[in-house]
Amino acid sequence: MAKEGADMTEETEYMINRNVGKEPENVETTSDAKEMRAVILAGFGGLNKLRVTKKPMPELQDGEVKIRVKACGLNFLDLMVRQGTIDNPPKPPVVPGFECSGIIESVAENTAGFEIGDRVMAFVNYNAWAEVVCTPVDFVYKMPDEMTFAEAAAFSLNFVAAYMMLFEVANLREGMSVLVHSAGGGVGQAVAQLCSTVPNVTVFGIASCFKHTAIRDSVTHLFDRNIDYMQEVKKISPEGVDIVLDCLCGENTGKGLTLLKPLGTYILYGASNMVTGETKSFFSFAKSWWQVEKVNPIKLYEENKVIAGFSLLNLLFKHGKSSLVKSVMDKLLCLYDQKKIKPVVDSLWALEEVKEAMQRIHDRGNIGKLILDVEKAPTPLMASDSTETSEAGEEEEEPEGDNDSKERMPFIH
Amino acid sequence: MAKEGADMTEETEYMINRNVGKEPENVETTSDAKEMRAVILAGFGGLNKLRVTKKPMPELQDGEVKIRVKACGLNFLDLMVRQGTIDNPPKPPVVPGFECSGIIESVAENTAGFEIGDRVMAFVNYNAWAEVVCTPVDFVYKMPDEMTFAEAAAFSLNFVAAYMMLFEVANLREGMSVLVHSAGGGVGQAVAQLCSTVPNVTVFGIASCFKHTAIRDSVTHLFDRNIDYMQEVKKISPEGVDIVLDCLCGENTGKGLTLLKPLGTYILYGASNMVTGETKSFFSFAKSWWQVEKVNPIKLYEENKVIAGFSLLNLLFKHGKSSLVKSVMDKLLCLYDQKKIKPVVDSLWALEEVKEAMQRIHDRGNIGKLILDVEKAPTPLMASDSTETSEAGEEEEEPEGDNDSKERMPFIH
Repeated sequence: MAKEGADMTEETEYMINRNVGKEPENVETTSDAKEMRAVILAGFGGLNKLRVTKKPMPELQDGEVKIRVKACGLNFLDLMVRQGTIDNPPKPPVVPGFECSGIIESVAENTAGFEIGDRVMAFVNYNAWAEVVCTPVDFVYKMPDEMTFAEAAAFSLNFVAAYMMLFEVANLREGMSVLVHSAGGGVGQAVAQLCSTVPNVTVFGIASCFKHTAIRDSVTHLFDRNIDYMQEVKKISPEGVDIVLDCLCGENTGKGLTLLKPLGTYILYGASNMVTGETKSFFSFAKSWWQVEKVNPIKLYEENKVIAGFSLLNLLFKHGKSSLVKSVMDKLLCLYDQKKIKPVVDSLWALEEVKEAMQRIHDRGNIGKLILDVEKAPTPLMASDSTETSEAGEEEEEPEGDNDSKERMPFIH
Repeated sequence: MAKEGADMTEETEYMINRNVGKEPENVETTSDAKEMRAVILAGFGGLNKLRVTKKPMPELQDGEVKIRVKACGLNFLDLMVRQGTIDNPPKPPVVPGFECSGIIESVAENTAGFEIGDRVMAFVNYNAWAEVVCTPVDFVYKMPDEMTFAEAAAFSLNFVAAYMMLFEVANLREGMSVLVHSAGGGVGQAVAQLCSTVPNVTVFGIASCFKHTAIRDSVTHLFDRNIDYMQEVKKISPEGVDIVLDCLCGENTGKGLTLLKPLGTYILYGASNMVTGETKSFFSFAKSWWQVEKVNPIKLYEENKVIAGFSLLNLLFKHGKSSLVKSVMDKLLCLYDQKKIKPVVDSLWALEEVKEAMQRIHDRGNIGKLILDVEKAPTPLMASDSTETSEAGEEEEEPEGDNDSKERMPFIH
């Protein structure tokens, strides 16, 4: 894919300019088409760096299947990719997105077990937010018959991450307690459901107040993210908790470690606190990195504590653990068949609505997963609507040449 | 015990002086005796701070049993206690020692399940190196009939620590690999034996060259502690290892983390690198603490790695996990009954030989566990023998008033 990205640079930039303001329905979507619609990240920065454009169809490589995409998952990590605040970011332009669901349209050699017409969900190392995706069968899983494409796109990353953290990294057992940040998010809801498959597990969830009514039943104790959650947890459980799952980082790392019982495990699986405004400079990323509280191993020794990091995408695409992930997916699909778990979908968005979707996840407005529904037509917006909402403390964005009103054209019909 | 220590200060110091040079056989050992022999640490520092002296019999408290001690375990941690290089050290004079075996001589209220005459092994929060020990039944375990007292004193701390690190903190499973430092020591040998109870586990052991013949069969691959073990491990297993068990700390923490496979676990369970010479100032302790490489949680996230600390004594005496330890001991005694594990005893020493024993562990001369055999008479030494052996790089010891030839009197008969 790096090769494709390199070859594509000039052509894609040409298309970005050519396609600004075009209607998506002009794009062909039959199997014979040479081009497909895709979300393109033209460079790192704000929402204005995202467009829907035409792109040549990807070509099958040995061991890959070609998937006609129905739905894609949107994760907080996609915001960080957009801002370039990840380790070793790809060279733009790039098609973002790490997971999708759809129907297999063709198969290459060495794809035993998969056939044209199979309904599948898949991980992709970028390029998921497109009408057609090619990915190695190592990252492809057949969907249960009763699972919808939206559910499937909401399933893979969140449930695999939640399961592996609870049962592979930590060792969740009967009677334990779990603290989870962003309890209303996709991973948070997966964690809550998986905890309920183990007897007598106490879940402390932290979420914005306006989500509490919707998610109250999914956790044992629910706290507002703006209060001193350490004090609240200690009131209920003075000795602390067994497992802390943190996607925020920053000061929550020290707090999480402090809240651990002896032999407890703190797992960092994201760093969404690094994203404060719509854009983020490399300097502020570096600052965040260095400001994270480092951990003294001797302190862990004295306190009998465990600190872990978990990145499912690195595990899959850098660390070669696809077989392990496949075995975890098998267990998860059993739990799904037994109706013990079910992905929570927050909302469906057209590809052309990716900016609004991203803003919603940035504002932490979602309960469960945001899905890009490839076949959905964009919802008409009022001309006065703006995708450029902001929050307190947002950083000033540098003025950019292409940040003009044309940017919003695809969203207004 | 803190109370007792405080009350005892003057009396003990009087006894230390009174007893220098006395023969241990002058001390009464019947149940009616008001006094007992014990090793006393008069203050933090070198070997000269240790003496055998008389001490009043400990008194039973509710929930405790009184044990007529037969054997005590000597651990590297006892050296660090002697030097005061531990967190929150006790106020000397203090009787060192954390584990012993023996026969129950009397029981207090609330000690159901234990009777006079029971052969037991026990953890003690200091005070183990004495003829009689009182400790709560939470820390007492019945010995199998065929287990000797020396074996029992070599069993508790090493096997419980090894088991909990491998199976509670990490999650050792079939086909995994384990790197263990000090493979010839008590914990190292316990780790090797426990690994052999799981199919297809590869053990990389690191030990001084002169131990290799003795311990070669206990591990899969054995490396000299003076070579670049990272390179050697990578030659055999380029992807690294699943579990690293480190009792050294210092630069080995960074090396251990680097050697981990994704989802691998590094466990720090000691910091023997903090001990270089016979004595250690507080300043050099503080320096060691700060020089330990701190770990960035975001790096753990990117690399999918786990770092843990494990201190069995803190778990027992500070963190209230005696029930968990008891359940672990039950599993270990099953494995002992099945002849799958057996403690390795390096050597037996009289209480009066505690300095030589400590020097041997300091010089890393032991293979398996050093035992203080309470009923053993000291081995006669040649007048020219010295307990003050040293190693290259040892720090200069400050001259002290009581560091004269009388110090060695109890060792020469």
